[in-house]
Amino acid sequence: RRCGLPEVVYAEHKTPEEVIAIVDALRERSGYALATRVKEADRPALRAAWSGVPVQEAAGAGAFLVGSPPPLVGLPPVPVVAAGTSDLPVAREAELTLRAMGQSAHRITDVGVAGLHRLLERLPELAAGRVVVVIAGMEGALPSVVAGLLPAPVVAVPTSVGYGAAFGGVAALLGMLNSCGSGVTVVNIDNGFGAALSAGRINALGGPAEPDAAAAVSPASGR
Amino acid sequence: RRCGLPEVVYAEHKTPEEVIAIVDALRERSGYALATRVKEADRPALRAAWSGVPVQEAAGAGAFLVGSPPPLVGLPPVPVVAAGTSDLPVAREAELTLRAMGQSAHRITDVGVAGLHRLLERLPELAAGRVVVVIAGMEGALPSVVAGLLPAPVVAVPTSVGYGAAFGGVAALLGMLNSCGSGVTVVNIDNGFGAALSAGRINALGGPAEPDAAAAVSPASGR
Amino acid sequence: RRCGLPEVVYAEHKTPEEVIAIVDALRERSGYALATRVKEADRPALRAAWSGVPVQEAAGAGAFLVGSPPPLVGLPPVPVVAAGTSDLPVAREAELTLRAMGQSAHRITDVGVAGLHRLLERLPELAAGRVVVVIAGMEGALPSVVAGLLPAPVVAVPTSVGYGAAFGGVAALLGMLNSCGSGVTVVNIDNGFGAALSAGRINALGGPAEPDAAAAVSPASGR
Amino acid sequence: RRCGLPEVVYAEHKTPEEVIAIVDALRERSGYALATRVKEADRPALRAAWSGVPVQEAAGAGAFLVGSPPPLVGLPPVPVVAAGTSDLPVAREAELTLRAMGQSAHRITDVGVAGLHRLLERLPELAAGRVVVVIAGMEGALPSVVAGLLPAPVVAVPTSVGYGAAFGGVAALLGMLNSCGSGVTVVNIDNGFGAALSAGRINALGGPAEPDAAAAVSPASGR
Amino acid sequence: RRCGLPEVVYAEHKTPEEVIAIVDALRERSGYALATRVKEADRPALRAAWSGVPVQEAAGAGAFLVGSPPPLVGLPPVPVVAAGTSDLPVAREAELTLRAMGQSAHRITDVGVAGLHRLLERLPELAAGRVVVVIAGMEGALPSVVAGLLPAPVVAVPTSVGYGAAFGGVAALLGMLNSCGSGVTVVNIDNGFGAALSAGRINALGGPAEPDAAAAVSPASGR
Amino acid sequence: RRCGLPEVVYAEHKTPEEVIAIVDALRERSGYALATRVKEADRPALRAAWSGVPVQEAAGAGAFLVGSPPPLVGLPPVPVVAAGTSDLPVAREAELTLRAMGQSAHRITDVGVAGLHRLLERLPELAAGRVVVVIAGMEGALPSVVAGLLPAPVVAVPTSVGYGAAFGGVAALLGMLNSCGSGVTVVNIDNGFGAALSAGRINALGGPAEPDAAAAVSPASGR
Amino acid sequence: RRCGLPEVVYAEHKTPEEVIAIVDALRERSGYALATRVKEADRPALRAAWSGVPVQEAAGAGAFLVGSPPPLVGLPPVPVVAAGTSDLPVAREAELTLRAMGQSAHRITDVGVAGLHRLLERLPELAAGRVVVVIAGMEGALPSVVAGLLPAPVVAVPTSVGYGAAFGGVAALLGMLNSCGSGVTVVNIDNGFGAALSAGRINALGGPAEPDAAAAVSPASGR
Amino acid sequence: RRCGLPEVVYAEHKTPEEVIAIVDALRERSGYALATRVKEADRPALRAAWSGVPVQEAAGAGAFLVGSPPPLVGLPPVPVVAAGTSDLPVAREAELTLRAMGQSAHRITDVGVAGLHRLLERLPELAAGRVVVVIAGMEGALPSVVAGLLPAPVVAVPTSVGYGAAFGGVAALLGMLNSCGSGVTVVNIDNGFGAALSAGRINALGGPAEPDAAAAVSPASGR
Ligand SMILES: Nc1ncnc2c1ncn2[C@@H]1O[C@H](COP(=O)(O)O)[C@@H](O)[C@H]1O
Ligand SMILES: Nc1ncnc2c1ncn2[C@@H]1O[C@H](COP(=O)(O)O)[C@@H](O)[C@H]1O
Ligand SMILES: Nc1ncnc2c1ncn2[C@@H]1O[C@H](COP(=O)(O)O)[C@@H](O)[C@H]1O
Ligand SMILES: Nc1ncnc2c1ncn2[C@@H]1O[C@H](COP(=O)(O)O)[C@@H](O)[C@H]1O
Ligand SMILES: [Mg+2]
Ligand SMILES: [Mg+2]
Ligand SMILES: [Mg+2]
Ligand SMILES: [Mg+2]
Ligand SMILES: [Mg+2]
Ligand SMILES: [Mg+2]
Ligand SMILES: [Mg+2]
Ligand SMILES: [Mg+2]
Repeated sequence: RRCGLPEVVYAEHKTPEEVIAIVDALRERSGYALATRVKEADRPALRAAWSGVPVQEAAGAGAFLVGSPPPLVGLPPVPVVAAGTSDLPVAREAELTLRAMGQSAHRITDVGVAGLHRLLERLPELAAGRVVVVIAGMEGALPSVVAGLLPAPVVAVPTSVGYGAAFGGVAALLGMLNSCGSGVTVVNIDNGFGAALSAGRINALGGPAEPDAAAAVSPASGR
Repeated sequence: RRCGLPEVVYAEHKTPEEVIAIVDALRERSGYALATRVKEADRPALRAAWSGVPVQEAAGAGAFLVGSPPPLVGLPPVPVVAAGTSDLPVAREAELTLRAMGQSAHRITDVGVAGLHRLLERLPELAAGRVVVVIAGMEGALPSVVAGLLPAPVVAVPTSVGYGAAFGGVAALLGMLNSCGSGVTVVNIDNGFGAALSAGRINALGGPAEPDAAAAVSPASGR
Repeated sequence: RRCGLPEVVYAEHKTPEEVIAIVDALRERSGYALATRVKEADRPALRAAWSGVPVQEAAGAGAFLVGSPPPLVGLPPVPVVAAGTSDLPVAREAELTLRAMGQSAHRITDVGVAGLHRLLERLPELAAGRVVVVIAGMEGALPSVVAGLLPAPVVAVPTSVGYGAAFGGVAALLGMLNSCGSGVTVVNIDNGFGAALSAGRINALGGPAEPDAAAAVSPASGR
Repeated sequence: RRCGLPEVVYAEHKTPEEVIAIVDALRERSGYALATRVKEADRPALRAAWSGVPVQEAAGAGAFLVGSPPPLVGLPPVPVVAAGTSDLPVAREAELTLRAMGQSAHRITDVGVAGLHRLLERLPELAAGRVVVVIAGMEGALPSVVAGLLPAPVVAVPTSVGYGAAFGGVAALLGMLNSCGSGVTVVNIDNGFGAALSAGRINALGGPAEPDAAAAVSPASGR
Repeated sequence: RRCGLPEVVYAEHKTPEEVIAIVDALRERSGYALATRVKEADRPALRAAWSGVPVQEAAGAGAFLVGSPPPLVGLPPVPVVAAGTSDLPVAREAELTLRAMGQSAHRITDVGVAGLHRLLERLPELAAGRVVVVIAGMEGALPSVVAGLLPAPVVAVPTSVGYGAAFGGVAALLGMLNSCGSGVTVVNIDNGFGAALSAGRINALGGPAEPDAAAAVSPASGR
Repeated sequence: RRCGLPEVVYAEHKTPEEVIAIVDALRERSGYALATRVKEADRPALRAAWSGVPVQEAAGAGAFLVGSPPPLVGLPPVPVVAAGTSDLPVAREAELTLRAMGQSAHRITDVGVAGLHRLLERLPELAAGRVVVVIAGMEGALPSVVAGLLPAPVVAVPTSVGYGAAFGGVAALLGMLNSCGSGVTVVNIDNGFGAALSAGRINALGGPAEPDAAAAVSPASGR
Repeated sequence: RRCGLPEVVYAEHKTPEEVIAIVDALRERSGYALATRVKEADRPALRAAWSGVPVQEAAGAGAFLVGSPPPLVGLPPVPVVAAGTSDLPVAREAELTLRAMGQSAHRITDVGVAGLHRLLERLPELAAGRVVVVIAGMEGALPSVVAGLLPAPVVAVPTSVGYGAAFGGVAALLGMLNSCGSGVTVVNIDNGFGAALSAGRINALGGPAEPDAAAAVSPASGR
Repeated sequence: RRCGLPEVVYAEHKTPEEVIAIVDALRERSGYALATRVKEADRPALRAAWSGVPVQEAAGAGAFLVGSPPPLVGLPPVPVVAAGTSDLPVAREAELTLRAMGQSAHRITDVGVAGLHRLLERLPELAAGRVVVVIAGMEGALPSVVAGLLPAPVVAVPTSVGYGAAFGGVAALLGMLNSCGSGVTVVNIDNGFGAALSAGRINALGGPAEPDAAAAVSPASGR
């Protein structure tokens, strides 16, 4: 919680009452809080509880940024790449986490390895990042390909998208751990939060961005 | 054994004496035999036993084509793609199996997904195949990428190349089973033999090749 | 998406709104679209949304062929073999995919390995295929047996039918990967779609069928 | 050890000295002992130690029947079916165990499911058994097929024959546990000993055989 | 289905309509049918559909014996041992299956290995069986202990009872496969049906029971 | 290393030179050191290096107690139970560790669950312990049975004894974790060292033993 | 059930009627009973059934202590450490079990390894225990750290808290089994009951506490 | 290979001849090459082949830096933390890789989580890094603890150190993926190479170091 970490609560195994109480305490202290992995069934209750507060929600992910996050610190946006539409909830969680750190994201989507030309068209946008977050399910091959095309470190997020031998994200996780593309490191399945935390820390190492790097997508406005 | 299958013996769990006896019986019947997965320690004994017979060996794979295989039947060569040098033994087993079926292979190597440009340069050679065998270890992403670039069916072979979370080829196997590239089917880890058998049968469906498709690499001449 | 692939959307991890939007876009472009793995709960909404459009549905599988698929291209039907009644949803997904490719299927069912005579009676129908799709759960032994009886390539589909040590299709998957029947390749658990895509491409290699091979079962008419 | 069990020692994790001492003690008591899973490297030492004693050895299995086993009790031989040559060591262990129980075996081999006709030719021999032991590796489909053809209980033994996704016998084990052939029960991978023990007890339930059922193969004479 | 097998349908992956249709067809032919693994949600519909027919139900297991099963054939009852109350549904499925075969069961329960004296008290009842079915979850140790106490073959059924590292019955399954108690064979997790089928066939080998062995518990009367 | 822990070095992944150097440093400080899991191949070198020093070795386990361990502290011996002869190396490692803690062990062996009477005969010896170490491989059922017979806490050690579905000790580990015998806690596979450390700490809670509890087996004298 | 065990029923696989009947029988005998792992859906029915009886409930865990447990026996409280709020249900189950044994607990929470200072502040409270129960999910590192700081034996409980590669508690379980902190033993995932049973037995070895060790938290009063 | 990657060859599945040829080609091009994971048996041959060339070897890891690597680029050293002596080979591989990138490392060792005070003493050295590589086997808890103490991104490397339920590094890998310490990303088991590559790229983002940060340990000089 110290060490410059955003103020976050992992909601999955907590009751709504517990989540609300912790978020209130964090907001008291810092003006904002980030709740991640709120269970589907608990989301309406939380939305209601926070109806009078500014809230950004990562659609499909159950992540909520409650209160006023710190102002943007002037770093270049972090490219957040989602292989397919199905991977978007994880991308949104990553974007919301970056926002909670006072940073921004640039989303690139629908660039899976089975349609390389779509990926190659977006290369300049990818190349603008100091560090890139790459999110993919099923065979999880996208980080390898991206890392082969860019000198920047790649933080890879396997997702639970898929069925059968996808084993809830294990296939993608193993693919990423075995990446023969250099400079790839990996976080837990569906862990957009952790990827953003690492990427944000890496991004900050390079100091403030040039003023024109403002093409960041605001995390909650996109789909 | 009937059904047009080449005459093969799976040697891994047999004594050298058993392998020699079965190969002799098959050669008696058909003029040739293919022994696959001969254990490292048994190879010298078999080479010695067959010193007076024409033998082609797939280096590193322990596969031996003993006697005179059927003449080439005039089909176009099957592209056999190996992601890296380490995957070559499996590629050689596939090539030797195709040869035992009276077919030929066209080898393409060192085209892993972490260096896309090398793969893209070889695209015309890949596109010449009716069916393509793609062999890769570690994250096993190559078949997905190849299948996205070609209309031909892809037979994917995961290899045991890698360490740690490669789990002896399991990571590559799962990657291939979850391929979002269309038209990919998969065989067992390191099973160049089975891939070639399927690919050869598919190749034969299209009838004889045009006369100039003769660029096939002879399986035992290459590295 | 290019390379002669049917226009498909993988619906499992998408909202109904997302599926409808993508299907609309694909139909705009090509006149039809195939949506696979629509979740049970979302099916009524999609049926309602498409009530004015020609739709074929693969019962139990959540696959929908929306709009007017391409005309039949005159290839021989692909035998699609389901070991038991429980495996039928996967068979229906395969048939619908073949239809989306302008091809047809010939369904053979209830021919599991524990009752060999039923399989042997259907051998002539199986032998009429250039390529055969074999679908089985539990121990997944059927592709091995079929491949031993036929010279055609076999595309094997493990299903999640079973319980306990079936592990959601893993037992069948492993059985098929280890098939000692030659010419078997494998796709992901329950992946009727991918099997059909490969089988359709293989079937097309042989050129148009003879006029009398018209015994194909229309995918949506059967049970 | 009581309950009619043969006198056995499981040698795999014991030193040769320990094995010899226990076998001596058992022979003292009963006139014979069965040592199973003697490590490859320890076999010569044991052969030497027992050079003056009647010994039957199951080739390749490391099983030794030392001393004079009980006389044959006049039960019908138990059919012991091995799918392929590679499975023979396990079959030999089963046969030696039956011999230690005063029973005999009838071996049937090279009847894998990829060549059904060979199996069907041997059906009368299989049908003569009260209980059948079926041994197979790789996809382990043989017990399902056999159980579908016979009313007798089938004791299935998965073997570690295979590679890659055979996972040292796990694929065969799962196949057998999921057998849709009725009347199949399963023992541990490569456990010919345990299969024989169960089969021998079942065989004994039916009382003495008719005098002409003497076609039993003596375990140590065959290959 | 032939080979003296009872007329059974595996309902888990079928619609209620499919189950009813198949059961009707089987009853037409044989006067009765056994449906196993009917899903919880489908049970009321099936009970309603069969309200006018004699039906025995294995409580908690979703197994239904519909119509008039064959008369009892005069074999001794098979001891069916359940380690704990939680294992009873599997025991009831086994008993119903035996009944469908014209045999009977003798139930022994609450005799887990952590309370040995309870097991030892029931030894005479166990010893009366020609073959014993032993059902246990969690560590699955009961079959080993029982097999050490009895000369009869033991058919072991692991159950999915437990949590955490029980892994849905895998721990019990592995325990039983590794049983150092002799004469144990194993069936799939929760497979009371398969255990009964094997046990019934074994029981039949010994011929008719003595008249006084009538202590069998009727499967549907007990808890 | 502090906290009353014996001075130990885990040798498995170290060179002999590293082990010797660390052991020397520890002996300098405390007069003795315990090295565990010395690789088979390195044992002669270490024996030679320590030829002039008092050394106790746990045969088969690669554990060495070098120098003069602390005097016996007067606690009652800890019963150390090994299910079979094959489990003895792990028992010896536990005994040597207890000795390094100034405690002693009382060994009980050959009391596997398949021969209950042998276990029941040794009950008084077991009952004399404040805490009991129980070591078993294969199905690992012994701790459950022992815990059901005694009020003392049981520290269970799964061993890698077994083959096939024993999975190197995983089956025994799972059995122990799922023990329905109360009061069982578990350590890693083959971890006699860790079991002894816990058991020794528990034993010490009860204060000095009565003078006649001196029946402890010296760890290095037994087999 | 004998051996000083509290009177407990494992409710997870039982119907509410079965649980009530067994609890009634145990209360008849001993005045109280402990029911653990009551399914979420069954809890209201049980609360209603026991509305007139003194009942303590472990919130979130489905554990109920019904009737009048034995009086406190005067032992020092057992420190029960939960790494995070999400692990509290397991801690509450442990506390209720200790209470059923006539012992008490001292709860310490929110001391995960990512915030070491919080743990170090609570060290004196931890050091007061003769034995410590440590409960953690995700990477399960807390027991290693605690064991390195204390001489007392540590009973570690992995929890199912986490997602993705937490695999329902397997990651934490493996972490604890491999603990390089000495004196750690492990129980099943989420098994607060078993941990308390062992810890209570260990605690009792040291005899009555000093009178001032009364800081125990009553299990049902805390959150 | 482009993208600023060092010139490396993965030697594990190659023959010595292949490794030498590729290293020669790379040296021709760049003046140096890094060969990783040279098999134990092949190391003498490679050492001999390169006897006339400047070579740095990572002891125990089979990594060789052949020729003259690029000069140090003036970045601050990367702290490389090894939990124990057994993890040093992986640390040395990481250090050699950093050197091949023109960077340096600062090694910190013997700071496992079971002895926290040793870690806390080294905190200032850790805090000097922009990014930290943390290497640990067994339960792999160290990265979580380190990440909780530092704001820098942590690249975690699980090692195969351990036995039994360490499963060749899987336990450590899972622990690291589930790290509740923020800012941790993970690479494959034993992959010191990949960790260094990522860490080096991250380190470079911050630009040149202050002149006094020269305390780097030369990778090949230390043990
Ligand atoms: N490398 C291999 N991988 C898989 N199957 C093989 C291989 N080599 C041979 N086979 C199969 O094994 C059969 C021969 O088995 P066997 O009779 O035991 O030698 C052949 O008919 C092939 O189907
Ligand atoms: N049932 C399915 N199984 C596997 N892949 C599928 C399936 N349905 C569609 N796909 C693949 O998913 C792609 C579409 O993915 P998406 O853009 O996420 O809808 C298609 O091009 C297919 O290659
Ligand atoms: N190959 C084997 N597989 C499984 N169990 C065996 C085997 N050989 C012997 N056994 C069992 O191991 C027991 C002897 O174990 P031990 O006393 O350690 O030699 C015998 O009573 C058998 O039940
Ligand atoms: N120890 C290693 N672990 C993982 N990847 C490696 C390792 N060493 C080299 N590589 C990768 O393997 C590639 C070289 O592969 P190859 O051409 O087969 O030698 C390099 O570019 C690296 O990306
Ligand atoms: Mg992907
Ligand atoms: Mg690859
Ligand atoms: Mg099947
Ligand atoms: Mg087989
Ligand atoms: Mg049990
Ligand atoms: Mg045991
Ligand atoms: Mg934790
Ligand atoms: Mg560690």
